[in-house]
Amino acid sequence: MQFHLNGFRPGDPSHHRASRDLGDRPTDKVDVLIVGCGPTGLTLATQLAQFSDIHTMIIDQKSGPLKVGQADGIACRSIEMFEAFGFSEKVLKEAYWVNETTFWGPAEDDPTMIARTGRIQDVAEDLSEMPHVILNQARIHDFYLDVMRHSPNRLEPRYDRVFIDLRIDHEQDYPVSVTLDHHGSIETVRAQYVVGCDGARSGVRNAMGAELVGETANKAWGVMDILMDTNFPDIRFKSVVRSSEHGHILIIPREGGYMVRLYVEIETLASGVRAKDRNITIDELIAAAQRILHPFHVDVKEVAWWSVYEIGQRLCPSFDNATGDHPATVFIAGDACHTHSPKAGQGMNVSMADAFNLGWKLAAVLRGQLPRTALATYATERHGVAQDLVDFDRHWAKEFSTCGNGQSNLDQRRFQDYFEEHGRYMAGVAVQYTPSLLCKEPVDQSLAGGLTVGMRFHSAPVIRLWDARPLQLGHCLKADGRWRLMIFNDPSDPSDQSSRLWRFCDWLSDDITSPLNLFTPRGADPDSVIDVRAVFQQTHRSIAPEMTHPLLTPKKGSYRLSDTEKMFCTDPCFDIFEHREVDRHRGCALILRPDQYIADVSALGTYDAISLFFKGIFDH
Amino acid sequence: MQFHLNGFRPGDPSHHRASRDLGDRPTDKVDVLIVGCGPTGLTLATQLAQFSDIHTMIIDQKSGPLKVGQADGIACRSIEMFEAFGFSEKVLKEAYWVNETTFWGPAEDDPTMIARTGRIQDVAEDLSEMPHVILNQARIHDFYLDVMRHSPNRLEPRYDRVFIDLRIDHEQDYPVSVTLDHHGSIETVRAQYVVGCDGARSGVRNAMGAELVGETANKAWGVMDILMDTNFPDIRFKSVVRSSEHGHILIIPREGGYMVRLYVEIETLASGVRAKDRNITIDELIAAAQRILHPFHVDVKEVAWWSVYEIGQRLCPSFDNATGDHPATVFIAGDACHTHSPKAGQGMNVSMADAFNLGWKLAAVLRGQLPRTALATYATERHGVAQDLVDFDRHWAKEFSTCGNGQSNLDQRRFQDYFEEHGRYMAGVAVQYTPSLLCKEPVDQSLAGGLTVGMRFHSAPVIRLWDARPLQLGHCLKADGRWRLMIFNDPSDPSDQSSRLWRFCDWLSDDITSPLNLFTPRGADPDSVIDVRAVFQQTHRSIAPEMTHPLLTPKKGSYRLSDTEKMFCTDPCFDIFEHREVDRHRGCALILRPDQYIADVSALGTYDAISLFFKGIFDH
Repeated sequence: MQFHLNGFRPGDPSHHRASRDLGDRPTDKVDVLIVGCGPTGLTLATQLAQFSDIHTMIIDQKSGPLKVGQADGIACRSIEMFEAFGFSEKVLKEAYWVNETTFWGPAEDDPTMIARTGRIQDVAEDLSEMPHVILNQARIHDFYLDVMRHSPNRLEPRYDRVFIDLRIDHEQDYPVSVTLDHHGSIETVRAQYVVGCDGARSGVRNAMGAELVGETANKAWGVMDILMDTNFPDIRFKSVVRSSEHGHILIIPREGGYMVRLYVEIETLASGVRAKDRNITIDELIAAAQRILHPFHVDVKEVAWWSVYEIGQRLCPSFDNATGDHPATVFIAGDACHTHSPKAGQGMNVSMADAFNLGWKLAAVLRGQLPRTALATYATERHGVAQDLVDFDRHWAKEFSTCGNGQSNLDQRRFQDYFEEHGRYMAGVAVQYTPSLLCKEPVDQSLAGGLTVGMRFHSAPVIRLWDARPLQLGHCLKADGRWRLMIFNDPSDPSDQSSRLWRFCDWLSDDITSPLNLFTPRGADPDSVIDVRAVFQQTHRSIAPEMTHPLLTPKKGSYRLSDTEKMFCTDPCFDIFEHREVDRHRGCALILRPDQYIADVSALGTYDAISLFFKGIFDH
Repeated sequence: MQFHLNGFRPGDPSHHRASRDLGDRPTDKVDVLIVGCGPTGLTLATQLAQFSDIHTMIIDQKSGPLKVGQADGIACRSIEMFEAFGFSEKVLKEAYWVNETTFWGPAEDDPTMIARTGRIQDVAEDLSEMPHVILNQARIHDFYLDVMRHSPNRLEPRYDRVFIDLRIDHEQDYPVSVTLDHHGSIETVRAQYVVGCDGARSGVRNAMGAELVGETANKAWGVMDILMDTNFPDIRFKSVVRSSEHGHILIIPREGGYMVRLYVEIETLASGVRAKDRNITIDELIAAAQRILHPFHVDVKEVAWWSVYEIGQRLCPSFDNATGDHPATVFIAGDACHTHSPKAGQGMNVSMADAFNLGWKLAAVLRGQLPRTALATYATERHGVAQDLVDFDRHWAKEFSTCGNGQSNLDQRRFQDYFEEHGRYMAGVAVQYTPSLLCKEPVDQSLAGGLTVGMRFHSAPVIRLWDARPLQLGHCLKADGRWRLMIFNDPSDPSDQSSRLWRFCDWLSDDITSPLNLFTPRGADPDSVIDVRAVFQQTHRSIAPEMTHPLLTPKKGSYRLSDTEKMFCTDPCFDIFEHREVDRHRGCALILRPDQYIADVSALGTYDAISLFFKGIFDH
């Protein structure tokens, strides 16, 4: 955390000063109107709240924050994102950590009973610096709301507002006009952009004239958060239990040490029947759990929350209202775009990632950094992810539900293998965006085999040069809208003024055609648009930081103080060059997007590629 | 963190429900009155706030919380304590981490300039699981205030109250009568106990008729928190700089990446002259810093806080008002007991440790668990620590200030060695209490060579059995007033019912004369007074948790839910048995006090020693 740059200020450094014009901001005219206060809407709002010059409004039909239930699985990638928003430590402290997953099937000697058939480490070594955890979605909301509340915009949701409709008038500066119902009275809000984060029954999507397409499977499932007494030995492990005759259970231990969530298969629904129409009771759910977990007892003491649903994989063909004539002004994200079963733990994670993808782009367009055409990448990038998700979920749900008396150990083994194979996917770190304006077709990918263009920057431990602090390199990639140039140096000494690194830094800082000079506004800090950082192969004690290139210790703020947090060395216990397969001989330079995705890898001497890339996005 | 035991409750689990009788509590009659809202008083108040049945009042003469300046060094041991209070992660996130300390002296070729003479890792490997950090004392206050505010007692300081005097009447239930000045009007508060945490000029100490004894050295020092531009290369390392002619500087980088604290030697004072009488200006301080750091430039942009002081080591002979006739009712803690130079970074740390030592004892006496005689151990245990501190500081200050033109590299080397040798002391983990009612004369110390009776429990990584969660064993020792029995098992399988472990657990749970049965109130959770935990030598996958002794998975709360967080296995990457020198063949049982100090180590089969110890303290 950096603070006190422009003078000492007492108190919590994460509480920003309020913007000066807060009181003057109209409530009927905003830059971005977000409909829905779920994880998707809150991710987007929190991202936009980082920019004091963007006027955001977020509304919800509910009367206040969520308290209970719904999603709880938080993939590694989401916690990486929470770190960028500044609250990962709160999640890590409070959540249940999924360390192992166990598998149960019919016992070989007596298939009427279940027996453990396998156990695996849930997250493979070095897949992410973050664990896979489980925490009530409501708490994630709380953490977002806290960041929003203390942002320069003092952003708070406006509750009790039901989205009614929207109209577009491209002639207007604020082209989208939205009508809301607030306790029976109609409010109209004009916005430059509207984002529907309003769930599977999205009103914004309907207003766009789009709908979810796909099938709804005929399997009914129940989910319940309970406090119970049981002698099932893996009750504190995520466990996949497949009985021979009574269906399946997914056990998800919950935060706090006592609560557990059970996903219970209930029955096959007749065609056209929806789960909620069946009036399934909580007693039926509990009875099903008891049958499946036989011979172990399940004595439920309290039901904190429960629900019944059917599996369905549906996808909206369009994620925005762009046409050939007009770029998009309305977007949808999260469940408004894609619905699927909750059992792969993807729902909240993919939805938040939608918003993380869209947020910085909207901010950059509103602030004049990016052309409006860049917004088209939201739909292309996230539609691909949603398609994968729906396909994966269909397969996963089928694998999950395929059983019967014929279920064999071989089936069990295959299922476990499938689970293990898709760990990378389920951790949220397998997403790879295709080439676009914001992500290059990789030419020099071989220079960093473990840092793939189009994928998220995979963090690793390093030692910060100026103060020998051990930290995760990825944790300096905050969700602040900045691009980053991450230089992995060749073996030359960082003080060697004839090295490729020095010449590169000279170019960046001195050449008037370099992206830093072209695109950093006059008077702004040198790292305010493109943040240059460097990683060295040497250990920190063998480098004299004061002899390195001045660009890597930039002067910032009103006092022109030195920022000493730009240079890093290898951690003796974990060589980032080795583990991320960086070419030691040639080094490389990575362009990182504000959402931590890698936009390009190039050789250290290649100025043209970097120059062209930034001109392509900033020069409009 | 454990929560939801007695039913699901939404919201932040660290926010406790308010006690039912809060509104009925008188403001003129309290169990404990704490005078002073510094780190000492707040540690004590936070500890007492854990107990909903104790009525505590904390007052301060200031009008509100501290915002700036004063102490900033936080030793490893203090962060271990913060973890027990539940906010270590906030400190770790915000603070500067002292990773290395560098040493500078006169350059060999030109003694008018300084040059680096050495650098060391600041905290030795495995000294503590926590780092040494630097953070504004005001922020530590904030974290304490936050815990207090959300405790069942909703404890908030009463500001604007100046302590005037106190009187004792031993005939009364609330024997101490304290008068306070609140904006000119007199308030009287009766208390069972009064604790003066009111600093070096303690009014409570004066009212006790005691005073600080010792010398005040004639060296004036200045301290300033500044934002500056400099080319001194170790500006982000803690650095000890000794110039040949201009004195010394201690550089302490500060949180946020830009601020730095300088301790600057100014001059020798004439006898009887106090530093504050000299009217030293900030400009003189800055000029001194510039002279000492020559040839490096120091361009100060902002002074956030500064002060001038003289070194003095003084100690109060008595820490309480106990007499032969009456046990103590009034205590003093922190700077009220001991003052010394700030440069060894001990002040705030030793003071908070005073309060941590006293808090649980006061609570246990007030709740009828411990006899009042146990309170005498506060003075004996902490007076010893204070004496060591004052002795160390006198030596340290002398080492620091001994210099002149004759200063050689040998001197520098000796100084650095001295610093390195005392790392354990400065980290706060060298304290060892002598035998008393609350700490046995060790008989079986050889069973756990690295877990010394009288010293704090030295944490290590382990894997929790029921959920394979990697964690620090010491982090389950919360500041909740509970004693702990930490069993390190012999090599037998934990499911072996003929093992020493099973027989020991049988005795603990079934024998009516065992301390668990004698001293746990009827109806209370089995771990509410003595919390039994076990560490196994096996890896977690080789143990069936459901086959272990039921005492180690106790049923708790209104629903009798299983607590699955009592058993641990060795971490494959760090064998706690090896690193803490636990006898693998015999195992052992540790008695841990509520302040994490080890009260005894005994062999697994030795019931008598454990029985006698607990009878000695609880049977009165």
